[in-house]
Amino acid sequence: MKFKLDLSLLLVLISAAIYAQKPMDRLSVNQNEFVNEEGEIMVFRGVNTSDPDKLEKDDLWNENYFKEIKDWGATIVRFPIHPEAWRERGEKEYLKLLDKGIEWAEKYSMYVILDWHSIGNLKNQLYLDDMYYTTLPETFAFWKLMAVRYGDRPSVAFYELFNEPTVYNQRFGTLKWKEWKSIMEEIIIIIRANGGEGIPLVAGFNWAYDLGPVKEQPIDAENIGYVAHPYPQKREKPWEPKWTEDWGFVKEKYPVILTEIGFCDESSPGAHVPVISDESYGDAISNYADINNISYVIWVFDMDWAPRMYKDREFTPSRQGEYFKKKMRSYKK
Amino acid sequence: MKFKLDLSLLLVLISAAIYAQKPMDRLSVNQNEFVNEEGEIMVFRGVNTSDPDKLEKDDLWNENYFKEIKDWGATIVRFPIHPEAWRERGEKEYLKLLDKGIEWAEKYSMYVILDWHSIGNLKNQLYLDDMYYTTLPETFAFWKLMAVRYGDRPSVAFYELFNEPTVYNQRFGTLKWKEWKSIMEEIIIIIRANGGEGIPLVAGFNWAYDLGPVKEQPIDAENIGYVAHPYPQKREKPWEPKWTEDWGFVKEKYPVILTEIGFCDESSPGAHVPVISDESYGDAISNYADINNISYVIWVFDMDWAPRMYKDREFTPSRQGEYFKKKMRSYKK
Amino acid sequence: MKFKLDLSLLLVLISAAIYAQKPMDRLSVNQNEFVNEEGEIMVFRGVNTSDPDKLEKDDLWNENYFKEIKDWGATIVRFPIHPEAWRERGEKEYLKLLDKGIEWAEKYSMYVILDWHSIGNLKNQLYLDDMYYTTLPETFAFWKLMAVRYGDRPSVAFYELFNEPTVYNQRFGTLKWKEWKSIMEEIIIIIRANGGEGIPLVAGFNWAYDLGPVKEQPIDAENIGYVAHPYPQKREKPWEPKWTEDWGFVKEKYPVILTEIGFCDESSPGAHVPVISDESYGDAISNYADINNISYVIWVFDMDWAPRMYKDREFTPSRQGEYFKKKMRSYKK
Ligand SMILES: [Mg+2]
Ligand SMILES: [Mg+2]
Ligand SMILES: [Mg+2]
Ligand SMILES: [Mg+2]
Ligand SMILES: [Mg+2]
Repeated sequence: MKFKLDLSLLLVLISAAIYAQKPMDRLSVNQNEFVNEEGEIMVFRGVNTSDPDKLEKDDLWNENYFKEIKDWGATIVRFPIHPEAWRERGEKEYLKLLDKGIEWAEKYSMYVILDWHSIGNLKNQLYLDDMYYTTLPETFAFWKLMAVRYGDRPSVAFYELFNEPTVYNQRFGTLKWKEWKSIMEEIIIIIRANGGEGIPLVAGFNWAYDLGPVKEQPIDAENIGYVAHPYPQKREKPWEPKWTEDWGFVKEKYPVILTEIGFCDESSPGAHVPVISDESYGDAISNYADINNISYVIWVFDMDWAPRMYKDREFTPSRQGEYFKKKMRSYKK
Repeated sequence: MKFKLDLSLLLVLISAAIYAQKPMDRLSVNQNEFVNEEGEIMVFRGVNTSDPDKLEKDDLWNENYFKEIKDWGATIVRFPIHPEAWRERGEKEYLKLLDKGIEWAEKYSMYVILDWHSIGNLKNQLYLDDMYYTTLPETFAFWKLMAVRYGDRPSVAFYELFNEPTVYNQRFGTLKWKEWKSIMEEIIIIIRANGGEGIPLVAGFNWAYDLGPVKEQPIDAENIGYVAHPYPQKREKPWEPKWTEDWGFVKEKYPVILTEIGFCDESSPGAHVPVISDESYGDAISNYADINNISYVIWVFDMDWAPRMYKDREFTPSRQGEYFKKKMRSYKK
Repeated sequence: MKFKLDLSLLLVLISAAIYAQKPMDRLSVNQNEFVNEEGEIMVFRGVNTSDPDKLEKDDLWNENYFKEIKDWGATIVRFPIHPEAWRERGEKEYLKLLDKGIEWAEKYSMYVILDWHSIGNLKNQLYLDDMYYTTLPETFAFWKLMAVRYGDRPSVAFYELFNEPTVYNQRFGTLKWKEWKSIMEEIIIIIRANGGEGIPLVAGFNWAYDLGPVKEQPIDAENIGYVAHPYPQKREKPWEPKWTEDWGFVKEKYPVILTEIGFCDESSPGAHVPVISDESYGDAISNYADINNISYVIWVFDMDWAPRMYKDREFTPSRQGEYFKKKMRSYKK
């Protein structure tokens, strides 16, 4: 009995020794880079969790899940909060999931991106699926609450305001950049006024792919970053010149983070356009990102959603899992 | 037993022989006319059903109802879909009603107008009655769904975007034509992008009566038509010059369809302004329409709603029923 | 038995004799004053009831409550209708409360202010608390209904369109005066078109404190008044020059009414910024109002809400209750 207790205590101490860290820095923007409190450039590689609500139902929203992510080499995690899950679980219960996830991320020194995971046209309230349904006032209220609750917590470093704005070839109607820009700026004002000290991230049209309008009409706010989701089939090879043209050029002036990248082969469960590719994509996108000091976050650390990173509850890597596990571990920390 | 089977089979065959038609044409707009695939000008006369939900509750939403309509001489039917009925029955169940109604209309070679049957100011969400309540996003979503489901079905020829826009002498606040035009154009974009190949129909203010603003600011879209509901008491006799001034002038440049006309005498059940009149109105409006190649649709093939076209479940014509039954049958098909 | 009946009848007659009045005048605006039908300037002092829904639950929404208010010297009462209470009780039941309250106010010859008691940014639907939650269409519909039901009732003299517009230092985002002005003008149009003959009251930003923008961009409507809620801690002493600068200057051109004033000491239940002060505030604000023919309404005739006017169900005055009871009684009626 005593021995057992001692052993468990010992494990706790070892774990504490390994993971005890100085408190995480408040990140900020310096020119076109994310920097820590010492002004050092910070580049992150990490993974998307699936929706915390989904993981909780799977009995996977626990410390071990985060320990595994850390073990794969991640320094950042993104929580895709689906509006429908947010409403169905209820604000109070969902916040408990976020509280725990943030704590586990902190324990393993990983920064957190909060992501309001909708896909569609917020102006017209037309979305790809019911799970993405939200309204402008609900979106404002969500970010107000995030700012009040997590605004002074440095680990919660990024606020991704709206996952993937798209009019889907006008199936969701129209949305002008000027209208989108104005919505984004309003949310940023609300976040800041409610104490949100983190970095708001703004996505472009075409499912968070096209940042072209930023050239002429950047978001009118300081200390923000831009997002791209350059999945392999958004463009034909050679990708690099197109990436530069479509979103990479933004990095000349502002920080850019790829909050969703990933691939799988055609036979993989859930394979769909635009994610079908192979390791050549992995090489291309990680190299492009590394050369340009661009952080990236792989979609998705889950066994059911696609493209998956692992295949079973033992976290056996999928094909892209193997690729990115090796890749993430290869960076100097 | 065998005999009975044969007889019923025989009846089916006869019925098929009578009504079997070449597949219905996709209608389109050529200058100021609706035309078929051969480019021939098409002018329709037909009736409004009451709300399919209401008819289903009455046990009248069946083939016999459509057979009766055909027998009265109709070549078109309009389905007034009330937003409240749409929500209360639920999208899935309501679609089943539409599926069946469209099939019966096709069987009797009648074209269909889908009509989002609201009355009021969509901008302010103020309506004549709860049954007309809707929102802009619900209206977008409704038409998106209609386009996806019926967009490639030629029999579903017309989409009447919003039955009767009105601010009711400002009781519903204000609505500028520019605002209305912009809403209509957004819906048309959504319909087209979702595969809706039919002809959108746009109504004017004053309960779908006044098309004056079309002169200076027509809807910015091709292949559409305009709607008027010139009930008798909208204007004093002689009606014709006023009709030309208020909405008829539009026919010089664009197709126009009168998706609601009708009359009853004062003692008729449900008689109300602006529908009280007599056969002189029937003569005037049908002549005006015929001279100008304008299609018209009588309100309403129901025994409870006013002005009614029949009086009992045997479809005994009401006064306007008698008038229009004779009239519709008089046209060469 | 007979004696009892006679006695109660006698009491009714006495009561009728005391309170029977000529029907109340329709008030209107003449230049910068509220006037009666004889054109005489009318200045009111009175109290805010708490929410009629709250008082009904307390078993206080009865004639005796109004009799007590009258006895304190009030000539006006304001009903703060919280949107949440409105929805929860339901329109039909809430209207019964209003019907009764208006009748009792009339019996004691007190005018009524209907107040849509929300606090926050109506444009973004961000509010101080759930009880203040509403939407623009709900607000339109509320005032449409008020106009239809009470629009021709002279006792219902004022419509306070929205209690306290505030962006709370941008915690509720942004709201431009031009946007607010446009919302107010739309509501006024709706009220008038639905028969509302009373006087709409418009509040300024900063929780109904700052009327600065009225200087350059007054509301584009006749026969209206402006509102200020100059609680003591909105500004430091000496208050008078700041009051003039912030809202008092409006009285040079338009009527102004202070629909919420009040104070309590720090130890008082519910004491909070900006209401903490003492009788020096009572002197200052009532003098300022009196000198400028400005009506005022004390917050709040309740024993639970702060700053309260009485302390128990016997209506024992609180500190501000004593002050204002004496003050209100001191005016010539
Ligand atoms: Mg905090
Ligand atoms: Mg995605
Ligand atoms: Mg009608
Ligand atoms: Mg009345
Ligand atoms: Mg207040």
